[in-house]
Amino acid sequence: MIHPLVQNLTATFTRLYRYSHLAAIAGWDQSVMMPPKGNEARAAALAELQVLMHQTLTSEALAGLFQAASGEALDGAEQASVREMRRQWQQAKLLPERLVEAQSLAASRCEHAWRTQRQQNDWPGFLGNFREVVALAREEAKLLADAKGSSCFDALMDKYEPGMRSNDIDRIFGDVKSWLPELIEKTMTKQSLETAIKPQGPFPADQQRALGIEIMSLLGFDFEAGRLDVSTHPFCGGVAEDVRITTRYSEDDFMRSLMGTVHETGHARYEQNLPRERVHLPVGQARSMGIHESQSLSFEMQLGRSPQFLALIAPLVQKHLGRQAAFEAGNLAALFTRVQPGFIRVDADELTYPAHVILRYEIERALMACEIEAEDIPALWDEKMMTYLGIDSRGNYQDGCMQDIHWPGGSFGYFPSYTLGSMYAAQFFATIRSGQPDLDAQVLAGNLSPVFNWLEKHIWREASRWPTDDLVKRATGEALNPAHFRRHLEHRYLGA
Amino acid sequence: MIHPLVQNLTATFTRLYRYSHLAAIAGWDQSVMMPPKGNEARAAALAELQVLMHQTLTSEALAGLFQAASGEALDGAEQASVREMRRQWQQAKLLPERLVEAQSLAASRCEHAWRTQRQQNDWPGFLGNFREVVALAREEAKLLADAKGSSCFDALMDKYEPGMRSNDIDRIFGDVKSWLPELIEKTMTKQSLETAIKPQGPFPADQQRALGIEIMSLLGFDFEAGRLDVSTHPFCGGVAEDVRITTRYSEDDFMRSLMGTVHETGHARYEQNLPRERVHLPVGQARSMGIHESQSLSFEMQLGRSPQFLALIAPLVQKHLGRQAAFEAGNLAALFTRVQPGFIRVDADELTYPAHVILRYEIERALMACEIEAEDIPALWDEKMMTYLGIDSRGNYQDGCMQDIHWPGGSFGYFPSYTLGSMYAAQFFATIRSGQPDLDAQVLAGNLSPVFNWLEKHIWREASRWPTDDLVKRATGEALNPAHFRRHLEHRYLGA
Repeated sequence: MIHPLVQNLTATFTRLYRYSHLAAIAGWDQSVMMPPKGNEARAAALAELQVLMHQTLTSEALAGLFQAASGEALDGAEQASVREMRRQWQQAKLLPERLVEAQSLAASRCEHAWRTQRQQNDWPGFLGNFREVVALAREEAKLLADAKGSSCFDALMDKYEPGMRSNDIDRIFGDVKSWLPELIEKTMTKQSLETAIKPQGPFPADQQRALGIEIMSLLGFDFEAGRLDVSTHPFCGGVAEDVRITTRYSEDDFMRSLMGTVHETGHARYEQNLPRERVHLPVGQARSMGIHESQSLSFEMQLGRSPQFLALIAPLVQKHLGRQAAFEAGNLAALFTRVQPGFIRVDADELTYPAHVILRYEIERALMACEIEAEDIPALWDEKMMTYLGIDSRGNYQDGCMQDIHWPGGSFGYFPSYTLGSMYAAQFFATIRSGQPDLDAQVLAGNLSPVFNWLEKHIWREASRWPTDDLVKRATGEALNPAHFRRHLEHRYLGA
Repeated sequence: MIHPLVQNLTATFTRLYRYSHLAAIAGWDQSVMMPPKGNEARAAALAELQVLMHQTLTSEALAGLFQAASGEALDGAEQASVREMRRQWQQAKLLPERLVEAQSLAASRCEHAWRTQRQQNDWPGFLGNFREVVALAREEAKLLADAKGSSCFDALMDKYEPGMRSNDIDRIFGDVKSWLPELIEKTMTKQSLETAIKPQGPFPADQQRALGIEIMSLLGFDFEAGRLDVSTHPFCGGVAEDVRITTRYSEDDFMRSLMGTVHETGHARYEQNLPRERVHLPVGQARSMGIHESQSLSFEMQLGRSPQFLALIAPLVQKHLGRQAAFEAGNLAALFTRVQPGFIRVDADELTYPAHVILRYEIERALMACEIEAEDIPALWDEKMMTYLGIDSRGNYQDGCMQDIHWPGGSFGYFPSYTLGSMYAAQFFATIRSGQPDLDAQVLAGNLSPVFNWLEKHIWREASRWPTDDLVKRATGEALNPAHFRRHLEHRYLGA
């Protein structure tokens, strides 16, 4: 039987889950469906809901339950459940209601205006709203940091990546910076001798959509429990029972939407396969954003850009977009592993992607540490783009520091999760391969179940049962080890 | 300055408005976007929200405010605002939280299953869920009726049509029954001598959609503050700041979707033009469902099926659906006023429509009075369809008693609002014409502003400032007078 205290805690967190369902659907609608004049009322409604959730989390009754629970003998599963509930509670009770409401409103306002400001390359206009978002995030960071005894940035990153610290990130990113530039250079030299046939567009959006849907089905997406739609910035939203992924179509380039859809499908399968009997509780929800990204990047990078997977989907590409030499399996593999520094993070190739993340991490950490101000971002951005990728981004805000939704939405400390995700994904696939040495042949033959079964057993169904380190150790036998990521890249790009 | 008590009441009702925003958007999504496996979690989230709204409405703090307000000197606008807030409060405090939650869950379950059961003509399957919906509605009705000293049915109807009683409806419907059958007969005889050219399909959905959007624009729908989508049962949902109307397309019949879209656009313009500065309060929201339907029917029946409006849109029909003799103005007018008894209420012509409403009213009143049970509905339905419309509906549940969303969704007492709406609309147009004798010529010339301006001034911006009777008297100089409806029908159908 379940401990009565746990039952009481569970009842409150079940209610919170239902509120968060409404927030998720209304948030998805805001990005995908809502006409512009709806935003003010939507922002007010969402802020009201944030306040309600905050009140629910910080109620005296709940505090009493947590206090009582700490003296009780609970079994392992109960302990884990209480641990994850407590984490949310401790986070919430440090923040005043006024701040929660102000952050929600400022983020809605800034993000909504950003949609058009980005198109218009309007940095000064954006800055007007963005300063408020930064000020409120700093206020939050200070409150959390003081209580946790961490730096401001670490206090924010802890929301997305529990237990991770800047020191860890600095060490990991420092390692990447020590070998990645040379790997990029060697790869580009090698690829300069190879040719890839360029696909000839246009590729009508409805044909791309049909292709995306067939690939999602191949990847196991459950369309009875989710949807594919279009939004400015692709994301995976909705709720575990009804996962909403989005993409955007460019009629002269089918590759971005295709791989974006594969990426979001990875997120979606994690959500769709969380343990349904516990998904209403924190312990049954996604472990961290790094683990979430490890799923999307397992799909996109480990699986999606492998020559075997590309050979598997080549006939589908030809079926929906017509027959072209560019769509032959070998050419697709060349196209999807082509390394070329560019402006846009979400369109970056696998090798230059970490540079986009490191650049953002360095800027947001300085911003939260009050070492720089919002208006300093463009100059820093330009400098780092030139240093890390050799790209001149001056004056191009829309494809520069205004390209991502994270900062306008008030998410600081999220970006490291992407590169952590790449590393976890490489480590997971190293483990899958060691148990399934003929994995490539299986994928080529259309049998993706070794991947899905492993992820389901070791990641999806485990949800937040264990702290991240333990989850990774239980799954792979060791803690996060960036060497797998390096080995994967060297193997794929240099054949080493 | 605003009275402090009113300010406090306003703060709570503003919060309720924001909660209702989330309910409206999640409800729209449930009908338009949600994949089937999402329903259980959605139903739980919506029920939780209903409970929250009920708790907010029935809090002791709010009761204290209402008590204090009753002794205060308030100005007219404040009195009206408190009157409308009090109405919602008095309704809510009669109902236990358990019942509110059970009704929300039962309605979600029944309505969701109904979508497929209707397609499969599965009355026994439907009955399984529907009995619970009926039982809960009766429980609600009893609680409300005991407190209000009214009949059970009247207690429910009062939610949609404040102040209206079965006695009024019986009198009005009795009058209609006394002259309508003869009018239908005469009209059908007259029309049997006239020919109307049948349009030749198919009419692809995207062409119908483009036509619908152009007509919505002509009718003043603000696409920056609303959307048009597809759902099983057409409706107008969303929120005043972001109005979501739906339609459904049949490729062999463009007329249903066209007129359905005109109908929902009438609802939408009411919502889009409610006084924005008060729309978060009950006094700034739609007056009643009868008044709401009067707006949709002003658009659909008074304006939409007039020969002048049809001449105005004939070129648009030809633009989007191609040139056919059937699309000439005169033929469109003949088609859209063709009288032919049929199974489906929402597709009914203007003359037979009231019979569909009267039939439903008589059945739901008996059901709520416990004179019949849910399983008795099909036989009664068949009998009344034969009596009122000469149609044999036996065994055809999907086009019979399972055709409407109201009963599966737990709405009993709503149907009379449709025919009240027809009557209000006729009365409003009689008033508009008396002030604008050349109205037909104006419409023909594409100037619809006399209609919009009058509705905006007398109905839309008035919202719930006055009780329904006062609103109608202030707008037209008299209380509801069904004679206008009869005169309108006789003029249009017999040229009398």
